[in-house]
Amino acid sequence: MSRGNRTPTSSPEIERLIELLGKAPGLGPRSARRAALYLLKRKEQLMLPLAEALRDAAEKVAACSECGALDTLDPCAICAAPGRDDSLICVVAEVGDVWALERAGAFKGRYHVLGGLLSALDGVRPENLRVAKLVERAGRPGVKEIIIALSATVDGQTTAHYITEQLSASGASVSRLAHGVPVGGELELLDDGTLFAAFTSRRPF
Amino acid sequence: MSRGNRTPTSSPEIERLIELLGKAPGLGPRSARRAALYLLKRKEQLMLPLAEALRDAAEKVAACSECGALDTLDPCAICAAPGRDDSLICVVAEVGDVWALERAGAFKGRYHVLGGLLSALDGVRPENLRVAKLVERAGRPGVKEIIIALSATVDGQTTAHYITEQLSASGASVSRLAHGVPVGGELELLDDGTLFAAFTSRRPF
Repeated sequence: MSRGNRTPTSSPEIERLIELLGKAPGLGPRSARRAALYLLKRKEQLMLPLAEALRDAAEKVAACSECGALDTLDPCAICAAPGRDDSLICVVAEVGDVWALERAGAFKGRYHVLGGLLSALDGVRPENLRVAKLVERAGRPGVKEIIIALSATVDGQTTAHYITEQLSASGASVSRLAHGVPVGGELELLDDGTLFAAFTSRRPF
Repeated sequence: MSRGNRTPTSSPEIERLIELLGKAPGLGPRSARRAALYLLKRKEQLMLPLAEALRDAAEKVAACSECGALDTLDPCAICAAPGRDDSLICVVAEVGDVWALERAGAFKGRYHVLGGLLSALDGVRPENLRVAKLVERAGRPGVKEIIIALSATVDGQTTAHYITEQLSASGASVSRLAHGVPVGGELELLDDGTLFAAFTSRRPF
């Protein structure tokens, strides 16, 4: 690290805290220092509860063996919910996408989290994604439609094509989100209205 | 919280983690969700070590009884360092200011952290700051100069005046940091106050 980024406290405990905080997304070395000081001033109200919450979530939260979303239950709350439509499966890349779609309230079926997108650059190959489980789920009786809700990026579209191919033998039809998702846009960052519109006007793939 | 900010996972462990992460400075509800997901994907490498570092620092780090800086040692490493000039005490508002000055390497004396600035608006009164300890330290034999390094804001200047008054009985002289054009700063972008100060305290070239 450059001299300007070094934190000149000789306490290894503070150094380590700043180093680890700086690895979280959205926190650089400067904001990690600010955050560390902020936390050290609020030990009882925030710092210790946060340590506890991190440990607690790390120990209890795991991927749902059915859909791949994160929950303390397995199957997760969405897979186990009785009121949802079993004939629809929405395929997303990441758990954050499930949260975004649930916030929008546009979809009342089940989800399938791939765990990423195919990427030659990042070395993500089909076997790194939860595709086999999706094919298995799509082949179950009663499943009518697989809705592919992947980002409108090159990797997203490559993955969508690959999945469609894999699902061709299943009885379910495959659709994708409507245009309205801005090209190059990240699904997770979209507003509820756009997500809703994209869902309502989904088209056959 | 608005509907758009609610995280629709039914796991209270994830909800609580996101809530606490969102209280850290620089992380809003959206970035707290991103950070939580990022951490949940890196349990062993980042999430559990961070929980440990938070607990460790919360338990071991405390304010130095001499200067008020944060360290695991008391007196802190800077107060205990043998090579520094005991005749100079630099007064700052927060621990982060000590870190900034140490990074700059501009000062080799001792520090005194007030723990904030006087503020009528925020209800910070003299008894909330570590002023009595500063007066005691300034009165010790061998202390020659107290350098006030507080922000050039209304609260900073009010505090500087108050401290100067409190130190009038001590044998030490009181100085403050120079106002002027920041190094690398564009003259055109500076405010009138800074330009005026820079002119008033101009020096021979």
